[in-house]
Amino acid sequence: MTHTNRQWILQRRPTGPMTEDLFELRRTEVPAPSDGQVLVRTLCLSLDPANRVWIVGPSYRPAVELGTPMDGFAIGQVVRSEHPSLTPGALVTGELGWQDYSVWPAGRLRPLVPRPGVPLSHYLGVLGITGLTAYFGLLDIGRPEPGNTVLVSGAAGATGSVAGQIAKIRGCRVVGIAGRPEKCRWLVDELGFDAAIDYRHDDVSAALTKHCPDGVDVYFDNVGGPILGSALLAMRLHGRVVCCGAISGYDTGTPLASPPGIPSLLVGKRLEMKGFIVLDHAHRFGEAVDALAEWVEAGQIQVRDDRVEGLENAPRGLMGLLAGDNIGKRWVHVADPE
Amino acid sequence: MTHTNRQWILQRRPTGPMTEDLFELRRTEVPAPSDGQVLVRTLCLSLDPANRVWIVGPSYRPAVELGTPMDGFAIGQVVRSEHPSLTPGALVTGELGWQDYSVWPAGRLRPLVPRPGVPLSHYLGVLGITGLTAYFGLLDIGRPEPGNTVLVSGAAGATGSVAGQIAKIRGCRVVGIAGRPEKCRWLVDELGFDAAIDYRHDDVSAALTKHCPDGVDVYFDNVGGPILGSALLAMRLHGRVVCCGAISGYDTGTPLASPPGIPSLLVGKRLEMKGFIVLDHAHRFGEAVDALAEWVEAGQIQVRDDRVEGLENAPRGLMGLLAGDNIGKRWVHVADPE
Repeated sequence: MTHTNRQWILQRRPTGPMTEDLFELRRTEVPAPSDGQVLVRTLCLSLDPANRVWIVGPSYRPAVELGTPMDGFAIGQVVRSEHPSLTPGALVTGELGWQDYSVWPAGRLRPLVPRPGVPLSHYLGVLGITGLTAYFGLLDIGRPEPGNTVLVSGAAGATGSVAGQIAKIRGCRVVGIAGRPEKCRWLVDELGFDAAIDYRHDDVSAALTKHCPDGVDVYFDNVGGPILGSALLAMRLHGRVVCCGAISGYDTGTPLASPPGIPSLLVGKRLEMKGFIVLDHAHRFGEAVDALAEWVEAGQIQVRDDRVEGLENAPRGLMGLLAGDNIGKRWVHVADPE
Repeated sequence: MTHTNRQWILQRRPTGPMTEDLFELRRTEVPAPSDGQVLVRTLCLSLDPANRVWIVGPSYRPAVELGTPMDGFAIGQVVRSEHPSLTPGALVTGELGWQDYSVWPAGRLRPLVPRPGVPLSHYLGVLGITGLTAYFGLLDIGRPEPGNTVLVSGAAGATGSVAGQIAKIRGCRVVGIAGRPEKCRWLVDELGFDAAIDYRHDDVSAALTKHCPDGVDVYFDNVGGPILGSALLAMRLHGRVVCCGAISGYDTGTPLASPPGIPSLLVGKRLEMKGFIVLDHAHRFGEAVDALAEWVEAGQIQVRDDRVEGLENAPRGLMGLLAGDNIGKRWVHVADPE
């Protein structure tokens, strides 16, 4: 343990695409826990598209306040404890933020006991928020039946890649939309998607007609915007649209345009569009992590790690994530456990 | 029975607001039924916003073909029958169209045995397609709980007025949106709505804040467009939007603009938007008509008849319906039963 704490402080709110100077790297003293509190060292910091939403203003959660450390979900290790439930060395998860050290009431942290042989970073990805998002979004909101055609956008991302693989496990035909040939090859060659569409090079509507000739039963939408518009036109009667996120509009200064045809397309095709936030399903996280861990162990879900080295690279890492640079789960390696 | 048949023939497709000359009133011979067929005289012809959709192009059903009689749901009486299941004098419902007489295979008609004391026109309205649309849309798609706030647009129309009254029966707080002070007074003073908003005179968003201070749990949308946009902003977490129709865009030459915030509002507030077509629920029409008839008999659902006199006024009647002239169920009185 060092005596210096590094914190990425939110300096101002973005008015257009993110720039690194929204944040300032500040060096402070490592804080000391009071009674009932715990000092935690950040080990692995999750980077998520939603981070960009949090710095604009209030959303499904309050905005990150200016002048405070950037929020972020992370895995940490207890360094000092003034609470009997957590002893030094224990691993925890929580909203530790973009900083080396932080102090929390013990109740704000969740103990983490990794399964043998499972890398810590899995608990930010396939066994963490993004895997859980894929699980509940696909199974509870999308409700695919065997033989259904499932379309996933942001398919090479942490959530989309898991959602598509769960759909394959459930006996669906799965088509992914992603942004580079390398991503598309990964989806088809490694993950077993039935087809992949490169939205930067292909005509998405034409490709949907080709790859989903009978239409789409379930669309897992991570992107919003024109791709959502094309997907709506490709939906079959009684299809379900899982509204998970809208990354195509996050790193811009203007609100994302809604797709045309709302509500007429929904009426004519009897479609359901439903938004969700994974935290609403927290009471069932245990069941979901068990299922996901089994699928990973059995090789039915494959995971790709997109590791960013060093807390100092967190802002650049997030900017790259929003630009679609990542394949699989992007996270920041801050420190190793002791 | 006369020997002349009048038919409103669709002459061309509208490119903007409807004009009467889209149709031509043609006089022909009364047709004769062949073996297995039935000659029916139209008594009461339903006018429905969806009629306007049918003349533009294919939708959830094929478009009305140019040069053929306009389609329309109606109640008729059998005049001559070449099928043993239907005898002259029998009442039937079916897609009889805008004409005095028509010939159908017996299987295309549904026998109608009105309950004692119930006017025929009820079987076009509260006990017909619009009442059934309100029933399944509100109860199956909207799923209101007692104490919920239910918002209904097109609230003084045939479907909206019944949807709102069913919501009252289910113990909800009900707010209606309609287009004239007279309509709003009817909703509150006669039907027992808790509040009504006149969208032509009130600021809808401000009125929603006032009348739905805790937000809207279920929005029954008959109109689409800017009112749908305001409603989405007023929805509570986990609210349901029943996409029944979008009359505000029907009688125009341009597609209705989608409301802003799709999909972000759906994600952030975990909203469900779901379209439906009442015919998908045909296997449960019996149960629904029984329930609706009981509520009407008990005075829990009140019905207002908006009668247009004479087949010759059908086009004008539809144009007025699309302009919001009607209060309650608009239909055309073509002939009395013999």
